[in-house]
Amino acid sequence: MSCLPATAGRMERIAPFYVMDLLARARAMEAAGQDVVHMEIGEPDFITPQAVIEAGQQALANGKTHYTPALGLPALREAISTYYQERFDTQIAPERIIITPGASGALQLVMGVLAEAGRKVLLPDPGYPCNRNFVEWMGGTPVALKVDAASHYQPTAEQLSECWDEQTVALMLASPSNPTGTVIPPTQLSELAAFAEAHEGVLVMDEIYQGLLYEQAPATLLHERPQHFVINSFSKFFGMTGWRLGWLVAPECYVDAIERLAQNIFLAASTLSQYAALQAFSTDTQEILEQRREIFRQRRDFLYPALLDLGFDIPLQPEGAFYIYANSRPLANDSSTLCEDLLQKARVAVTPGKDFGRNQAQHHLRFAYTTDIDQLHKGVERIRGCLKKR
Amino acid sequence: MSCLPATAGRMERIAPFYVMDLLARARAMEAAGQDVVHMEIGEPDFITPQAVIEAGQQALANGKTHYTPALGLPALREAISTYYQERFDTQIAPERIIITPGASGALQLVMGVLAEAGRKVLLPDPGYPCNRNFVEWMGGTPVALKVDAASHYQPTAEQLSECWDEQTVALMLASPSNPTGTVIPPTQLSELAAFAEAHEGVLVMDEIYQGLLYEQAPATLLHERPQHFVINSFSKFFGMTGWRLGWLVAPECYVDAIERLAQNIFLAASTLSQYAALQAFSTDTQEILEQRREIFRQRRDFLYPALLDLGFDIPLQPEGAFYIYANSRPLANDSSTLCEDLLQKARVAVTPGKDFGRNQAQHHLRFAYTTDIDQLHKGVERIRGCLKKR
Repeated sequence: MSCLPATAGRMERIAPFYVMDLLARARAMEAAGQDVVHMEIGEPDFITPQAVIEAGQQALANGKTHYTPALGLPALREAISTYYQERFDTQIAPERIIITPGASGALQLVMGVLAEAGRKVLLPDPGYPCNRNFVEWMGGTPVALKVDAASHYQPTAEQLSECWDEQTVALMLASPSNPTGTVIPPTQLSELAAFAEAHEGVLVMDEIYQGLLYEQAPATLLHERPQHFVINSFSKFFGMTGWRLGWLVAPECYVDAIERLAQNIFLAASTLSQYAALQAFSTDTQEILEQRREIFRQRRDFLYPALLDLGFDIPLQPEGAFYIYANSRPLANDSSTLCEDLLQKARVAVTPGKDFGRNQAQHHLRFAYTTDIDQLHKGVERIRGCLKKR
Repeated sequence: MSCLPATAGRMERIAPFYVMDLLARARAMEAAGQDVVHMEIGEPDFITPQAVIEAGQQALANGKTHYTPALGLPALREAISTYYQERFDTQIAPERIIITPGASGALQLVMGVLAEAGRKVLLPDPGYPCNRNFVEWMGGTPVALKVDAASHYQPTAEQLSECWDEQTVALMLASPSNPTGTVIPPTQLSELAAFAEAHEGVLVMDEIYQGLLYEQAPATLLHERPQHFVINSFSKFFGMTGWRLGWLVAPECYVDAIERLAQNIFLAASTLSQYAALQAFSTDTQEILEQRREIFRQRRDFLYPALLDLGFDIPLQPEGAFYIYANSRPLANDSSTLCEDLLQKARVAVTPGKDFGRNQAQHHLRFAYTTDIDQLHKGVERIRGCLKKR
């Protein structure tokens, strides 16, 4: 149906998430009585840790139902500052920490102060699909940097030398990455930061999977390079997706502008979620989160070799997050068609590569291990059966 | 401190809320032991009704901590549809109802599909200060229509005839209005809607104070004119500010584009808030809300004559919301200076007219009756004392 007035031109450049359509069809199959294995969902299957839930209930009992300041509850900004100090030995003033409605809110604020017509933002392909849309949303130009296993699916300083020009203001990164689960090596990261700094630009680093690492200790860009933007979230590691709560660490000089934006575009994050999140750093909660991290590791340790055994090509074992980005070229010509087949014939839902960019997208699938090992096992065996019949 | 890269140009066009600065100073005075009467805050003093709070606690006990679909919990979209049917005798398909993080989220979605460079959006001055910023945010051009008491501080079809051009796509309205509390008469509204329709444009109607009317029955634009955008919220009438939950009713043809935007810019509204809001329409809650409406009416009935008695000029008795927009010209040359004096010398915080636009802004103040009558009485007497000394 055509609209009057016509929808704004940006909507032609904002693609849907294919996985959402896939998820809707998977749910419809389930509603019709079929059993579907979900390996498409970028959301932990665990519910929020009990201490956080109880803190939310208590905040409600205490009538904490009014607005907080636009930049967030002072106590939560302090708690995050302490977390950087204690966990990462990194001093971040609470004034630089801005509480947001999810990492999405943080991305809006960052692009609101950085992106505009005539400015470019570089980002890796494959990468989180919304990132390019946030740049577009603010009228800027997203520039995709093709990344592959040779550089841990992360950009390199050589690429910046080639692509960074007078119009470029920022490079977006994610470590661990969605969809690849790979971490940027410290030297590579230092080179990127140094390059950006030398060119009067900044990094916008997504650290929302920071706590979900399986071999190495969690790290933050801010430890060595404090003058960049860092985005984090209570969703993934802390298990608080539905609460819609994240945070942004910004260089101090942007904070006034960010406050004005926050006042205008969302007023403040959910009060209740902010009070509950005060318990996210407690010893009890951190113990539960560590147990869950161990469970995610076990799932990865099951799924990674199992996918290799099915014939997928996965050059690097993912080091974090809960994703495996698998090359399906040895098994199929086109990953979107394979996705369809897996859903229809094997009742396994996975995400096609085209949700993450254009670079070799037709040869990749993303598997999320956000379901238990029994389900993963069932999924793998169903895929095996399906591949045999193709 | 200057930033590298420099903040995007839009930040020069997005003004701070003066009231936020004022509020911060009022809080600082309180922290220093002074007693301040708050008549600046656009937030009900009541906490959320008990049945809603309990529903939130129960949702947490049930582990409802995962994402909902981007357009919202189906049960809540159904409940709002039923509310339109039962309260307004208006059929709105749940598919047209989009759950958002506050009315702010709804405004982002509407301007995301309507506004862009080369397009104009008309809006009344005085009006809600963020509206023009949402248009700017999307690259569009906000065009202020000066409104005054003669037209209930609402635009007229004559103004549209003068100002609407080929680039114009929409007219934003609010009824009852913030800051004036005035309602748009049905005939005036019909004329505006007919004009917009005849010019292939739409109305974007803010109905967030819909339930807070003191003489007339609540109404919705959708009853007579279903093919426009309507923004609503659980914040003001329902007393759920801190939960950050609102909704948007959109013409059907925009819903697909809006869904794509919502997926990208905020994923979904808070899950917990959505479950809690299911209780907002219950008989128990509605009874409490009606009692609160009566309390707001009593406050208005106290404050309106009291301000007249102080010498403010208020040509229309406000019919809804919890604001009085008072002309201070008989008492002072400049309302911002008067605001400062009232805070510093009388310890009464009110909002200067310049937060709501440029039209006669220097001659107006907004008084919010979001505090009890004893406080309002104290505030009025302090203002009386202060005015005598000026």
